[in-house]
Amino acid sequence: MFQQIFSPSVQHTLDLVGIFVFAISGALLAVRKNFDVFGIAVLAEATALGGGLIRDVIIGALPPAAFTDLGYFLTPLVAALLVIFLHPQVERIQSAVNVFDAAGLGLFCVTGTTTAYDYGLGLTASAALGLTTAVGGGVLRDVLANEVPSLLRWDRDLYAVPAIVGATLVVICIRYDALTPLASGFAAATAFVLRLLAMRFHWRAPRAWNRRSTVREE
Amino acid sequence: MFQQIFSPSVQHTLDLVGIFVFAISGALLAVRKNFDVFGIAVLAEATALGGGLIRDVIIGALPPAAFTDLGYFLTPLVAALLVIFLHPQVERIQSAVNVFDAAGLGLFCVTGTTTAYDYGLGLTASAALGLTTAVGGGVLRDVLANEVPSLLRWDRDLYAVPAIVGATLVVICIRYDALTPLASGFAAATAFVLRLLAMRFHWRAPRAWNRRSTVREE
Amino acid sequence: MFQQIFSPSVQHTLDLVGIFVFAISGALLAVRKNFDVFGIAVLAEATALGGGLIRDVIIGALPPAAFTDLGYFLTPLVAALLVIFLHPQVERIQSAVNVFDAAGLGLFCVTGTTTAYDYGLGLTASAALGLTTAVGGGVLRDVLANEVPSLLRWDRDLYAVPAIVGATLVVICIRYDALTPLASGFAAATAFVLRLLAMRFHWRAPRAWNRRSTVREE
Repeated sequence: MFQQIFSPSVQHTLDLVGIFVFAISGALLAVRKNFDVFGIAVLAEATALGGGLIRDVIIGALPPAAFTDLGYFLTPLVAALLVIFLHPQVERIQSAVNVFDAAGLGLFCVTGTTTAYDYGLGLTASAALGLTTAVGGGVLRDVLANEVPSLLRWDRDLYAVPAIVGATLVVICIRYDALTPLASGFAAATAFVLRLLAMRFHWRAPRAWNRRSTVREE
Repeated sequence: MFQQIFSPSVQHTLDLVGIFVFAISGALLAVRKNFDVFGIAVLAEATALGGGLIRDVIIGALPPAAFTDLGYFLTPLVAALLVIFLHPQVERIQSAVNVFDAAGLGLFCVTGTTTAYDYGLGLTASAALGLTTAVGGGVLRDVLANEVPSLLRWDRDLYAVPAIVGATLVVICIRYDALTPLASGFAAATAFVLRLLAMRFHWRAPRAWNRRSTVREE
Repeated sequence: MFQQIFSPSVQHTLDLVGIFVFAISGALLAVRKNFDVFGIAVLAEATALGGGLIRDVIIGALPPAAFTDLGYFLTPLVAALLVIFLHPQVERIQSAVNVFDAAGLGLFCVTGTTTAYDYGLGLTASAALGLTTAVGGGVLRDVLANEVPSLLRWDRDLYAVPAIVGATLVVICIRYDALTPLASGFAAATAFVLRLLAMRFHWRAPRAWNRRSTVREE
């Protein structure tokens, strides 16, 4: 059981924080897309819980945690309410939201990886599912809103790479039997800081070779 | 076992009616999007069976009913054939189709909720899965057709709310040990009538606060 | 156990070839959509493994083969690397890629059908899941890239029909206890050749009745 980085109650609180900030990002996109209040709630739920839901369906952890923990289900609704009434203010503090989103990314890539490993998957598969947990909700958000997933676009700051680094650190620790809470926390913090740096310095991944010069910018 | 509202054979017939009208809505969108006959059949199947399929995958009822009941699989194909040959006539009776679609919505939000509860989920989660069963097929239809899900758009008549009301009535009945066939039928009828009223009087949900005046209408 | 058409090691090699060419088609679309290198890798993985993943989640074969076989996971990454550095050359040999893609289609509609039957599904459901295995990855690719699935469009050469024919041949053989490796190979080859002929002679499926003349061409 590597699943807990911290004590169960601390872990649960951190999970709820991660779910909350992911839900904020879903609700804000819904407002921008001009959805009604129910659309905002649905997109908040899908963004916040989608990554873990996809992971649980794949590893066979059924019913998924998203449907067995009432707090997981209600937190996105609170986020949706907040955005519905205060979205100009929330958009104004977008950079604060981004910091929390980076924290959620760091946390979920670690817990996703350890959960998958607990269910008997191999190291590479566990890391892949850690990445899925961290970014799946955002992809589901963009697919439901009929947008090209921001994860895949070249003109966005690095998002997958910090999660890949975090998940890789975790499986390396598992491989060498060194996954202490401290090591897990370090992996999460590394992903968190890398994402903050990517946003601060606008780090972007290259596109395909020869693509840079010949293609019109979108 | 709350799953049957009515006797099994009546229930099965009602299920097939619901599947049929959902399939009609999928096939009509496919015709409007200019898909070929196989695309029409695929979209009819996805719309009709998608909601129950997503529910079954989440609660672990595998293989899903959509793949174990031949009638469930063949009904959408019949609907697709009908639309392929008679779509101008079917579009002309769109309001009749809408009435049946409302009936499917009412029925599926009830059976979805009771199925989830039978698989051991909590009351809130069961209601959420009842909603998913009722609206999931329509969302899958719109995602596959590359449209913004009509469920999320502010300029459509209320669709989720009647299903939420129906599912909530069911879990209230379960909570107080009062889920008789009559109560189930009442919940389904309530959702059905609410949806009819929403279409008749163009009830719509509000958008986010301050959004109404400042954003250009799409 | 009908799952192996050929000896396990030959089967595995053929699976990897099919995964590789499906991944190429995903990576090429990602380059065309101007995604960055991580987007290219994600779309290659989703295209190559999506069909089998959806099948495994539906039949309850968890965790899915895509996450338990390291070769399945790494092959799309190799394909993505190849496309990232050599995509003008790969696009120039598009017709060769199409031939391999047809081979993957033939192979996967057969192995998908037999896998589903091994997990206890009925004959019709097994054929439907064989089709899902063969075309699911391409649909997931197009949904993630925010395009109308090319499977559904009328202006594309037949793609589903060859897979339907292949899967149907397999279930007929199962029905009459005649699913020898030779028969499986024949079903796969039939689907493969049908797809090649469809591309060569631009066979297309009709649209809905009366649709041809009255609708503007997209």
